[in-house]
Amino acid sequence: MPSPAQNPQLKPAAELSIAALAGIPLVKEGDDIAGLILNGLAASGLLLRRGDVLVIAQKIVSKAEGRVVRLADVDPARDAIELAGRDGDPRRLELILSESTRVVRSRPPLVIAETAHGFVCASAGVDASNAPEPDSVVLLPEDPDASAARIRHEIRLRTGQRVGVIVTDTFGRAWRVGITNVAIGSAGIEVLRDYSGQLDPAGYELHSTVVAIADEIAAAAELVMGKTDRIPVAIVRGLAVEGHGSAKDLVISPEHDLFR
Amino acid sequence: MPSPAQNPQLKPAAELSIAALAGIPLVKEGDDIAGLILNGLAASGLLLRRGDVLVIAQKIVSKAEGRVVRLADVDPARDAIELAGRDGDPRRLELILSESTRVVRSRPPLVIAETAHGFVCASAGVDASNAPEPDSVVLLPEDPDASAARIRHEIRLRTGQRVGVIVTDTFGRAWRVGITNVAIGSAGIEVLRDYSGQLDPAGYELHSTVVAIADEIAAAAELVMGKTDRIPVAIVRGLAVEGHGSAKDLVISPEHDLFR
Repeated sequence: MPSPAQNPQLKPAAELSIAALAGIPLVKEGDDIAGLILNGLAASGLLLRRGDVLVIAQKIVSKAEGRVVRLADVDPARDAIELAGRDGDPRRLELILSESTRVVRSRPPLVIAETAHGFVCASAGVDASNAPEPDSVVLLPEDPDASAARIRHEIRLRTGQRVGVIVTDTFGRAWRVGITNVAIGSAGIEVLRDYSGQLDPAGYELHSTVVAIADEIAAAAELVMGKTDRIPVAIVRGLAVEGHGSAKDLVISPEHDLFR
Repeated sequence: MPSPAQNPQLKPAAELSIAALAGIPLVKEGDDIAGLILNGLAASGLLLRRGDVLVIAQKIVSKAEGRVVRLADVDPARDAIELAGRDGDPRRLELILSESTRVVRSRPPLVIAETAHGFVCASAGVDASNAPEPDSVVLLPEDPDASAARIRHEIRLRTGQRVGVIVTDTFGRAWRVGITNVAIGSAGIEVLRDYSGQLDPAGYELHSTVVAIADEIAAAAELVMGKTDRIPVAIVRGLAVEGHGSAKDLVISPEHDLFR
Protein backbone atom coordinates (compact mmCIF):
# COMPACT_ATOMS: atom_id res chain seq x y z
CA MET A 1 0.00 0.00 0.00
CA PRO A 2 1.35 3.48 -0.68
CA SER A 3 3.19 5.08 2.20
CA PRO A 4 3.63 8.83 2.74
CA ALA A 5 7.32 8.48 1.86
CA GLN A 6 6.33 7.45 -1.68
CA ASN A 7 4.46 10.70 -2.18
CA PRO A 8 6.59 13.76 -1.45
CA GLN A 9 3.48 15.95 -1.68
CA LEU A 10 2.12 14.58 1.56
CA LYS A 11 3.62 14.96 5.01
CA PRO A 12 0.79 14.08 7.34
CA ALA A 13 1.38 13.38 11.01
CA ALA A 14 0.03 9.90 10.42
CA GLU A 15 -1.62 8.11 7.58
CA LEU A 16 -3.74 5.02 7.23
CA SER A 17 -4.59 3.13 4.08
CA ILE A 18 -7.57 0.84 3.93
CA ALA A 19 -7.81 -1.47 0.94
CA ALA A 20 -10.66 -3.73 -0.03
CA LEU A 21 -9.41 -7.18 -0.95
CA ALA A 22 -10.88 -8.38 -4.21
CA GLY A 23 -10.99 -11.97 -5.36
CA ILE A 24 -12.35 -13.84 -2.34
CA PRO A 25 -14.76 -16.46 -3.71
CA LEU A 26 -18.04 -17.40 -2.02
CA VAL A 27 -17.03 -19.33 1.09
CA LYS A 28 -18.34 -22.77 2.07
CA GLU A 29 -17.91 -25.03 5.08
CA GLY A 30 -14.37 -26.22 5.58
CA ASP A 31 -12.79 -23.48 3.48
CA ASP A 32 -9.41 -22.20 4.59
CA ILE A 33 -9.98 -18.47 5.20
CA ALA A 34 -6.29 -17.68 5.63
CA GLY A 35 -5.55 -19.41 2.33
CA LEU A 36 -8.34 -17.56 0.52
CA ILE A 37 -7.01 -14.25 1.84
CA LEU A 38 -3.45 -15.05 0.81
CA ASN A 39 -4.67 -16.04 -2.67
CA GLY A 40 -6.57 -12.76 -2.91
CA LEU A 41 -3.51 -10.84 -1.84
CA ALA A 42 -1.35 -12.66 -4.35
CA ALA A 43 -3.83 -11.89 -7.14
CA SER A 44 -3.62 -8.22 -6.15
CA GLY A 45 0.18 -8.34 -6.07
CA LEU A 46 0.06 -7.23 -2.46
CA LEU A 47 2.46 -8.37 0.27
CA LEU A 48 1.43 -8.25 3.90
CA ARG A 49 3.64 -6.28 6.26
CA ARG A 50 4.08 -6.61 9.99
CA GLY A 51 1.47 -4.46 11.68
CA ASP A 52 -1.12 -4.73 8.93
CA VAL A 53 -4.58 -5.49 10.28
CA LEU A 54 -6.86 -7.85 8.36
CA VAL A 55 -10.52 -7.08 8.92
CA ILE A 56 -12.74 -10.03 8.06
CA ALA A 57 -16.53 -10.08 7.88
CA GLN A 58 -18.01 -12.59 10.32
CA LYS A 59 -20.17 -14.12 7.63
CA ILE A 60 -17.31 -15.83 5.78
CA VAL A 61 -15.75 -17.02 9.04
CA SER A 62 -19.07 -18.51 10.15
CA LYS A 63 -19.62 -20.21 6.80
CA ALA A 64 -16.13 -21.73 6.82
CA GLU A 65 -16.78 -22.98 10.35
CA GLY A 66 -20.07 -24.58 9.36
CA ARG A 67 -22.22 -22.20 11.40
CA VAL A 68 -25.04 -22.42 8.87
CA VAL A 69 -28.44 -23.91 9.71
CA ARG A 70 -31.19 -24.93 7.32
CA LEU A 71 -34.51 -23.67 8.59
CA ALA A 72 -36.14 -26.93 7.50
CA ASP A 73 -34.12 -28.66 10.21
CA VAL A 74 -35.44 -26.42 13.02
CA ASP A 75 -38.41 -27.36 15.19
CA PRO A 76 -39.66 -24.22 16.96
CA ALA A 77 -40.89 -24.34 20.55
CA ARG A 78 -43.79 -22.33 21.95
CA ASP A 79 -41.73 -19.26 23.02
CA ALA A 80 -40.25 -18.96 19.53
CA ILE A 81 -43.72 -19.18 17.98
CA GLU A 82 -44.92 -16.38 20.28
CA LEU A 83 -41.93 -14.15 19.59
CA ALA A 84 -42.35 -14.63 15.87
CA GLY A 85 -45.73 -12.93 15.95
CA ARG A 86 -47.67 -12.84 12.70
CA ASP A 87 -44.82 -11.86 10.39
CA GLY A 88 -41.82 -13.76 11.67
CA ASP A 89 -40.60 -17.25 10.97
CA PRO A 90 -40.81 -19.25 14.22
CA ARG A 91 -37.89 -21.43 13.10
CA ARG A 92 -35.70 -18.35 12.81
CA LEU A 93 -36.85 -17.18 16.24
CA GLU A 94 -36.06 -20.61 17.66
CA LEU A 95 -32.48 -20.23 16.44
CA ILE A 96 -32.28 -16.69 17.83
CA LEU A 97 -33.40 -17.94 21.24
CA SER A 98 -30.97 -20.83 21.16
CA GLU A 99 -28.15 -18.36 20.41
CA SER A 100 -29.26 -16.04 23.24
CA THR A 101 -28.65 -15.99 26.95
CA ARG A 102 -31.17 -13.18 27.40
CA VAL A 103 -33.75 -11.31 25.35
CA VAL A 104 -33.03 -7.62 25.88
CA ARG A 105 -35.95 -6.16 23.89
CA SER A 106 -38.52 -7.63 21.57
CA ARG A 107 -41.21 -6.33 19.29
CA PRO A 108 -42.31 -9.37 17.29
CA PRO A 109 -40.72 -10.42 15.05
CA LEU A 110 -37.75 -8.19 16.02
CA VAL A 111 -35.56 -9.33 18.89
CA ILE A 112 -32.52 -7.69 20.51
CA ALA A 113 -30.68 -10.35 22.47
CA GLU A 114 -27.51 -10.98 24.39
CA THR A 115 -25.45 -13.80 22.92
CA ALA A 116 -23.35 -16.33 24.78
CA HIS A 117 -20.33 -14.14 23.92
CA GLY A 118 -21.99 -11.23 25.76
CA PHE A 119 -22.74 -9.22 22.62
CA VAL A 120 -26.06 -7.39 22.51
CA CYS A 121 -27.34 -7.27 18.95
CA ALA A 122 -30.34 -7.76 16.71
CA SER A 123 -31.44 -11.39 16.30
CA ALA A 124 -28.47 -12.58 18.42
CA GLY A 125 -26.46 -12.34 15.20
CA VAL A 126 -28.64 -14.86 13.32
CA ASP A 127 -28.77 -13.57 9.76
CA ALA A 128 -30.29 -14.72 6.49
CA SER A 129 -28.47 -12.26 4.23
CA ASN A 130 -25.53 -13.71 2.35
CA ALA A 131 -26.48 -17.18 3.55
CA PRO A 132 -25.33 -20.00 1.27
CA GLU A 133 -28.84 -21.17 0.32
CA PRO A 134 -32.25 -19.46 0.37
CA ASP A 135 -33.72 -21.28 3.36
CA SER A 136 -30.70 -21.14 5.61
CA VAL A 137 -29.31 -18.68 8.13
CA VAL A 138 -25.82 -17.99 9.39
CA LEU A 139 -24.95 -17.89 13.11
CA LEU A 140 -22.06 -16.00 14.71
CA PRO A 141 -18.84 -17.99 15.15
CA GLU A 142 -18.83 -19.87 18.45
CA ASP A 143 -15.61 -18.19 19.56
CA PRO A 144 -14.71 -15.30 17.24
CA ASP A 145 -11.51 -14.50 19.18
CA ALA A 146 -10.37 -18.07 18.54
CA SER A 147 -11.36 -17.75 14.87
CA ALA A 148 -9.24 -14.59 14.59
CA ALA A 149 -6.33 -16.24 16.38
CA ARG A 150 -6.43 -19.27 14.06
CA ILE A 151 -6.40 -17.10 10.93
CA ARG A 152 -3.58 -14.99 12.37
CA HIS A 153 -1.58 -18.10 13.20
CA GLU A 154 -2.03 -19.57 9.73
CA ILE A 155 -0.92 -16.33 8.10
CA ARG A 156 2.15 -16.20 10.32
CA LEU A 157 3.02 -19.81 9.43
CA ARG A 158 2.66 -19.26 5.69
CA THR A 159 4.12 -15.77 5.30
CA GLY A 160 6.21 -15.19 8.40
CA GLN A 161 4.32 -11.93 9.00
CA ARG A 162 2.73 -10.92 12.28
CA VAL A 163 -0.53 -9.23 11.40
CA GLY A 164 -3.54 -8.28 13.44
CA VAL A 165 -6.90 -9.89 12.69
CA ILE A 166 -10.36 -8.56 13.50
CA VAL A 167 -13.57 -10.49 12.84
CA THR A 168 -16.49 -8.08 12.47
CA ASP A 169 -20.23 -7.85 12.31
CA THR A 170 -22.55 -4.87 11.86
CA PHE A 171 -24.56 -4.08 15.00
CA GLY A 172 -27.23 -1.51 15.78
CA ARG A 173 -26.80 0.85 18.70
CA ALA A 174 -29.05 2.46 21.27
CA TRP A 175 -29.92 6.13 20.62
CA ARG A 176 -28.51 6.29 17.07
CA VAL A 177 -29.88 5.33 13.67
CA GLY A 178 -28.14 2.73 11.57
CA ILE A 179 -25.71 -0.09 12.04
CA THR A 180 -21.93 0.17 12.23
CA ASN A 181 -19.28 -2.47 11.90
CA VAL A 182 -17.78 -3.61 15.21
CA ALA A 183 -15.19 -6.13 16.36
CA ILE A 184 -16.56 -9.44 17.60
CA GLY A 185 -13.23 -11.26 17.51
CA SER A 186 -9.63 -10.13 17.50
CA ALA A 187 -6.08 -11.41 17.64
CA GLY A 188 -2.74 -9.66 17.82
CA ILE A 189 -4.06 -6.16 18.36
CA GLU A 190 -4.79 -3.69 21.09
CA VAL A 191 -8.58 -3.57 21.39
CA LEU A 192 -8.95 -0.65 23.81
CA ARG A 193 -6.60 2.32 24.08
CA ASP A 194 -6.53 4.01 27.45
CA TYR A 195 -5.55 7.67 27.38
CA SER A 196 -5.98 8.07 31.17
CA GLY A 197 -3.07 9.90 32.70
CA GLN A 198 -2.03 11.57 29.45
CA LEU A 199 -2.07 15.34 29.50
CA ASP A 200 -3.82 17.58 27.04
CA PRO A 201 -1.89 20.64 25.76
CA ALA A 202 -3.14 22.71 28.73
CA GLY A 203 -1.81 20.13 31.18
CA TYR A 204 -5.28 18.78 32.02
CA GLU A 205 -5.09 15.07 32.72
CA LEU A 206 -7.41 12.95 30.61
CA HIS A 207 -9.59 10.74 32.83
CA SER A 208 -11.32 7.54 31.85
CA THR A 209 -10.79 8.12 28.17
CA VAL A 210 -10.75 4.61 26.80
CA VAL A 211 -11.19 4.42 23.06
CA ALA A 212 -12.56 1.23 21.49
CA ILE A 213 -10.04 1.23 18.68
CA ALA A 214 -10.89 -2.28 17.48
CA ASP A 215 -14.44 -1.06 16.84
CA GLU A 216 -13.09 2.02 15.07
CA ILE A 217 -10.88 -0.17 12.85
CA ALA A 218 -13.90 -2.37 12.08
CA ALA A 219 -15.94 0.72 11.20
CA ALA A 220 -13.19 2.10 8.99
CA ALA A 221 -12.91 -1.19 7.10
CA GLU A 222 -16.65 -1.37 6.47
CA LEU A 223 -16.36 1.77 4.36
CA VAL A 224 -14.59 -0.30 1.68
CA MET A 225 -16.32 -3.64 2.36
CA GLY A 226 -20.02 -2.95 1.80
CA LYS A 227 -22.85 -5.28 2.70
CA THR A 228 -23.19 -7.78 -0.12
CA ASP A 229 -20.40 -10.19 0.84
CA ARG A 230 -18.46 -9.56 -2.34
CA ILE A 231 -15.72 -7.76 -0.38
CA PRO A 232 -15.53 -9.59 2.94
CA VAL A 233 -11.92 -8.60 3.74
CA ALA A 234 -10.05 -5.33 4.06
CA ILE A 235 -6.43 -4.60 4.92
CA VAL A 236 -5.66 -1.65 7.16
CA ARG A 237 -2.09 -0.37 7.01
CA GLY A 238 -0.46 2.36 9.07
CA LEU A 239 -1.88 1.60 12.52
CA ALA A 240 0.40 0.98 15.49
CA VAL A 241 -1.90 -1.34 17.39
CA GLU A 242 0.03 -4.57 17.93
CA GLY A 243 -1.10 -6.06 21.22
CA HIS A 244 -2.98 -8.83 22.95
CA GLY A 245 -6.55 -7.65 23.35
CA SER A 246 -9.62 -9.83 23.11
CA ALA A 247 -12.90 -8.68 21.63
CA LYS A 248 -14.43 -9.93 24.91
CA ASP A 249 -12.84 -6.84 26.48
CA LEU A 250 -15.42 -4.83 24.53
CA VAL A 251 -18.31 -6.47 26.38
CA ILE A 252 -19.33 -4.22 29.24
CA SER A 253 -20.51 -5.63 32.55
CA PRO A 254 -24.05 -4.54 33.45
CA GLU A 255 -22.89 -2.75 36.60
CA HIS A 256 -20.50 -0.56 34.61
CA ASP A 257 -22.93 0.18 31.80
CA LEU A 258 -24.50 3.53 32.62
CA PHE A 259 -25.95 3.66 29.10
CA ARG A 260 -28.01 0.54 29.68
CA MET B 1 -2.61 11.57 -1.01
CA PRO B 2 -1.28 8.45 -2.75
CA SER B 3 -3.71 6.72 -5.06
CA PRO B 4 -3.63 3.08 -6.04
CA ALA B 5 -2.54 4.09 -9.54
CA GLN B 6 0.72 5.44 -8.12
CA ASN B 7 1.57 2.06 -6.67
CA PRO B 8 1.52 -0.69 -9.29
CA GLN B 9 1.83 -3.31 -6.53
CA LEU B 10 -1.69 -2.66 -5.34
CA LYS B 11 -4.93 -3.30 -7.20
CA PRO B 12 -7.57 -3.29 -4.52
CA ALA B 13 -11.27 -3.06 -5.33
CA ALA B 14 -11.38 0.19 -3.38
CA GLU B 15 -8.97 2.12 -1.26
CA LEU B 16 -9.25 4.83 1.35
CA SER B 17 -6.50 7.03 2.69
CA ILE B 18 -6.87 8.78 6.00
CA ALA B 19 -4.32 11.45 6.81
CA ALA B 20 -3.89 13.34 10.04
CA LEU B 21 -3.49 17.05 9.40
CA ALA B 22 -0.53 18.48 11.29
CA GLY B 23 0.00 22.14 12.02
CA ILE B 24 -3.35 23.26 13.43
CA PRO B 25 -2.54 25.64 16.32
CA LEU B 26 -4.53 25.74 19.58
CA VAL B 27 -7.85 27.31 18.65
CA LYS B 28 -9.45 30.28 20.39
CA GLU B 29 -12.76 32.09 20.11
CA GLY B 30 -13.28 33.77 16.76
CA ASP B 31 -10.70 31.67 14.93
CA ASP B 32 -11.42 30.81 11.34
CA ILE B 33 -11.42 26.99 11.27
CA ALA B 34 -11.54 26.77 7.47
CA GLY B 35 -8.54 29.09 7.27
CA LEU B 36 -6.57 27.10 9.85
CA ILE B 37 -7.29 23.89 7.95
CA LEU B 38 -6.22 25.42 4.62
CA ASN B 39 -3.02 26.71 6.23
CA GLY B 40 -2.33 23.25 7.62
CA LEU B 41 -2.94 21.70 4.22
CA ALA B 42 -0.65 24.24 2.55
CA ALA B 43 2.10 23.53 5.07
CA SER B 44 1.76 19.82 4.23
CA GLY B 45 1.84 20.54 0.50
CA LEU B 46 -1.56 18.91 0.18
CA LEU B 47 -4.32 19.96 -2.20
CA LEU B 48 -7.92 19.13 -1.47
CA ARG B 49 -9.81 17.18 -4.11
CA ARG B 50 -13.51 17.00 -4.77
CA GLY B 51 -14.96 14.24 -2.66
CA ASP B 52 -12.42 14.50 0.15
CA VAL B 53 -14.03 14.45 3.57
CA LEU B 54 -12.64 16.67 6.31
CA VAL B 55 -13.24 15.24 9.76
CA ILE B 56 -12.99 17.88 12.47
CA ALA B 57 -13.00 17.33 16.23
CA GLN B 58 -15.89 19.15 17.89
CA LYS B 59 -13.57 20.71 20.45
CA ILE B 60 -11.91 23.12 18.03
CA VAL B 61 -15.24 24.03 16.44
CA SER B 62 -16.74 24.77 19.86
CA LYS B 63 -13.75 26.86 20.91
CA ALA B 64 -13.85 28.90 17.71
CA GLU B 65 -17.57 29.47 18.29
CA GLY B 66 -17.00 30.64 21.85
CA ARG B 67 -18.72 27.63 23.44
CA VAL B 68 -16.40 27.79 26.46
CA VAL B 69 -17.63 28.55 29.98
CA ARG B 70 -15.55 29.47 33.03
CA LEU B 71 -16.77 27.49 36.01
CA ALA B 72 -16.31 30.59 38.20
CA ASP B 73 -19.17 32.18 36.26
CA VAL B 74 -21.62 29.33 37.01
CA ASP B 75 -24.07 29.43 39.94
CA PRO B 76 -25.35 25.89 40.55
CA ALA B 77 -28.97 25.25 41.51
CA ARG B 78 -30.12 22.60 43.96
CA ASP B 79 -30.60 19.80 41.40
CA ALA B 80 -27.04 20.28 40.14
CA ILE B 81 -25.71 20.14 43.70
CA GLU B 82 -27.57 16.86 44.28
CA LEU B 83 -26.39 15.29 41.02
CA ALA B 84 -22.80 16.28 41.78
CA GLY B 85 -22.77 14.03 44.86
CA ARG B 86 -19.64 14.14 46.99
CA ASP B 87 -17.08 14.00 44.20
CA GLY B 88 -18.51 16.14 41.43
CA ASP B 89 -18.33 19.86 40.82
CA PRO B 90 -21.88 21.27 41.10
CA ARG B 91 -21.00 24.06 38.64
CA ARG B 92 -20.12 21.46 36.02
CA LEU B 93 -23.35 19.57 36.73
CA GLU B 94 -25.28 22.85 36.39
CA LEU B 95 -23.85 23.25 32.88
CA ILE B 96 -24.62 19.63 32.03
CA LEU B 97 -28.24 20.13 33.09
CA SER B 98 -28.52 23.37 31.15
CA GLU B 99 -27.23 21.54 28.04
CA SER B 100 -29.70 18.66 28.57
CA THR B 101 -33.31 18.13 27.69
CA ARG B 102 -33.41 14.90 29.71
CA VAL B 103 -31.21 12.98 32.10
CA VAL B 104 -31.09 9.42 30.79
CA ARG B 105 -29.04 7.83 33.58
CA SER B 106 -27.11 9.19 36.51
CA ARG B 107 -24.78 7.83 39.13
CA PRO B 108 -23.36 10.93 40.83
CA PRO B 109 -21.26 12.55 39.58
CA LEU B 110 -21.69 10.71 36.24
CA VAL B 111 -24.60 11.75 34.04
CA ILE B 112 -25.78 10.41 30.69
CA ALA B 113 -28.06 12.99 29.14
CA GLU B 114 -29.92 13.83 25.98
CA THR B 115 -28.84 17.14 24.48
CA ALA B 116 -30.98 19.68 22.68
CA HIS B 117 -29.65 18.17 19.42
CA GLY B 118 -31.06 14.78 20.48
CA PHE B 119 -27.66 13.18 21.13
CA VAL B 120 -27.42 10.86 24.12
CA CYS B 121 -23.95 11.08 25.63
CA ALA B 122 -21.96 11.42 28.82
CA SER B 123 -22.21 14.83 30.50
CA ALA B 124 -24.35 16.16 27.62
CA GLY B 125 -21.06 16.76 25.83
CA VAL B 126 -19.72 19.14 28.50
CA ASP B 127 -16.01 18.42 28.69
CA ALA B 128 -13.04 19.79 30.61
CA SER B 129 -10.32 18.06 28.58
CA ASN B 130 -8.58 20.25 26.03
CA ALA B 131 -10.38 23.31 27.44
CA PRO B 132 -8.53 26.59 26.90
CA GLU B 133 -7.93 27.28 30.61
CA PRO B 134 -7.87 25.01 33.68
CA ASP B 135 -11.17 26.09 35.22
CA SER B 136 -13.24 26.12 32.07
CA VAL B 137 -15.26 23.56 30.13
CA VAL B 138 -16.23 23.26 26.49
CA LEU B 139 -19.83 22.72 25.35
CA LEU B 140 -20.96 21.12 22.09
CA PRO B 141 -21.58 23.52 19.20
CA GLU B 142 -25.13 24.84 19.25
CA ASP B 143 -25.80 23.58 15.72
CA PRO B 144 -23.00 21.26 14.56
CA ASP B 145 -24.61 20.71 11.14
CA ALA B 146 -24.51 24.47 10.61
CA SER B 147 -20.90 24.57 11.80
CA ALA B 148 -20.00 21.88 9.26
CA ALA B 149 -21.90 23.69 6.50
CA ARG B 150 -20.11 26.98 7.24
CA ILE B 151 -16.68 25.37 7.12
CA ARG B 152 -17.60 23.55 3.91
CA HIS B 153 -18.86 26.78 2.35
CA GLU B 154 -15.69 28.68 3.27
CA ILE B 155 -13.51 25.96 1.81
CA ARG B 156 -15.51 26.00 -1.40
CA LEU B 157 -15.19 29.80 -1.62
CA ARG B 158 -11.44 29.78 -1.10
CA THR B 159 -10.42 26.67 -3.03
CA GLY B 160 -13.28 25.98 -5.42
CA GLN B 161 -13.42 22.39 -4.10
CA ARG B 162 -16.56 20.64 -2.95
CA VAL B 163 -15.56 18.58 0.07
CA GLY B 164 -17.57 16.84 2.76
CA VAL B 165 -17.26 17.99 6.36
CA ILE B 166 -17.99 15.98 9.50
CA VAL B 167 -17.81 17.44 13.00
CA THR B 168 -17.18 14.67 15.54
CA ASP B 169 -17.16 13.86 19.20
CA THR B 170 -16.34 10.65 21.05
CA PHE B 171 -19.39 9.07 22.67
CA GLY B 172 -19.86 6.00 24.84
CA ARG B 173 -22.33 3.31 23.86
CA ALA B 174 -24.71 0.99 25.61
CA TRP B 175 -23.52 -2.63 25.97
CA ARG B 176 -19.93 -2.03 24.82
CA VAL B 177 -16.79 -0.80 26.56
CA GLY B 178 -15.07 2.37 25.41
CA ILE B 179 -15.88 5.43 23.41
CA THR B 180 -15.84 5.77 19.64
CA ASN B 181 -15.81 8.83 17.45
CA VAL B 182 -19.21 9.68 15.92
CA ALA B 183 -20.64 12.38 13.66
CA ILE B 184 -22.47 15.20 15.43
CA GLY B 185 -22.51 17.54 12.45
CA SER B 186 -22.16 17.01 8.73
CA ALA B 187 -22.33 18.83 5.42
CA GLY B 188 -22.05 17.65 1.85
CA ILE B 189 -22.08 13.95 2.57
CA GLU B 190 -24.38 10.99 2.70
CA VAL B 191 -24.86 10.20 6.40
CA LEU B 192 -26.78 6.93 6.13
CA ARG B 193 -26.44 4.38 3.35
CA ASP B 194 -29.47 2.21 2.77
CA TYR B 195 -28.78 -1.19 1.22
CA SER B 196 -32.45 -2.24 1.32
CA GLY B 197 -33.53 -3.80 -1.93
CA GLN B 198 -30.01 -4.73 -2.99
CA LEU B 199 -29.43 -8.41 -3.56
CA ASP B 200 -26.71 -10.49 -2.02
CA PRO B 201 -24.86 -12.96 -4.28
CA ALA B 202 -27.50 -15.64 -3.57
CA GLY B 203 -30.30 -13.31 -4.66
CA TYR B 204 -31.50 -12.69 -1.10
CA GLU B 205 -32.79 -9.15 -0.76
CA LEU B 206 -31.17 -7.13 2.01
CA HIS B 207 -33.82 -5.69 4.33
CA SER B 208 -33.47 -2.70 6.60
CA THR B 209 -29.72 -2.61 6.26
CA VAL B 210 -28.96 1.04 6.87
CA VAL B 211 -25.31 1.74 7.61
CA ALA B 212 -24.36 4.86 9.56
CA ILE B 213 -21.47 5.70 7.28
CA ALA B 214 -20.90 9.18 8.77
CA ASP B 215 -20.23 7.50 12.11
CA GLU B 216 -17.93 4.99 10.43
CA ILE B 217 -16.00 7.83 8.75
CA ALA B 218 -15.74 9.59 12.13
CA ALA B 219 -14.45 6.40 13.74
CA ALA B 220 -11.93 5.85 10.95
CA ALA B 221 -10.59 9.40 11.33
CA GLU B 222 -10.17 9.05 15.10
CA LEU B 223 -7.56 6.38 14.48
CA VAL B 224 -5.18 9.09 13.25
CA MET B 225 -6.48 11.96 15.41
CA GLY B 226 -5.97 10.76 18.99
CA LYS B 227 -7.41 12.41 22.06
CA THR B 228 -5.06 15.23 23.00
CA ASP B 229 -6.26 17.88 20.57
CA ARG B 230 -2.92 18.11 18.79
CA ILE B 231 -4.41 16.50 15.67
CA PRO B 232 -7.99 17.78 15.52
CA VAL B 233 -8.44 17.30 11.76
CA ALA B 234 -8.14 14.36 9.39
CA ILE B 235 -8.69 14.12 5.65
CA VAL B 236 -10.38 11.01 4.27
CA ARG B 237 -9.85 10.37 0.56
CA GLY B 238 -11.36 7.68 -1.61
CA LEU B 239 -14.94 7.64 -0.36
CA ALA B 240 -17.86 8.16 -2.72
CA VAL B 241 -20.22 9.74 -0.22
CA GLU B 242 -21.20 13.11 -1.67
CA GLY B 243 -24.73 13.87 -0.56
CA HIS B 244 -26.98 16.00 1.58
CA GLY B 245 -27.35 14.20 4.89
CA SER B 246 -27.63 15.87 8.26
CA ALA B 247 -26.14 14.43 11.44
CA LYS B 248 -29.63 14.89 12.89
CA ASP B 249 -30.61 11.91 10.73
CA LEU B 250 -28.48 9.81 13.09
CA VAL B 251 -30.71 10.65 16.07
CA ILE B 252 -33.20 7.85 16.52
CA SER B 253 -36.75 8.50 17.65
CA PRO B 254 -37.64 6.72 20.91
CA GLU B 255 -40.40 4.69 19.27
CA HIS B 256 -37.96 3.28 16.71
CA ASP B 257 -35.18 2.57 19.19
CA LEU B 258 -35.51 -1.08 20.14
CA PHE B 259 -32.08 -0.92 21.77
CA ARG B 260 -33.21 1.70 24.30
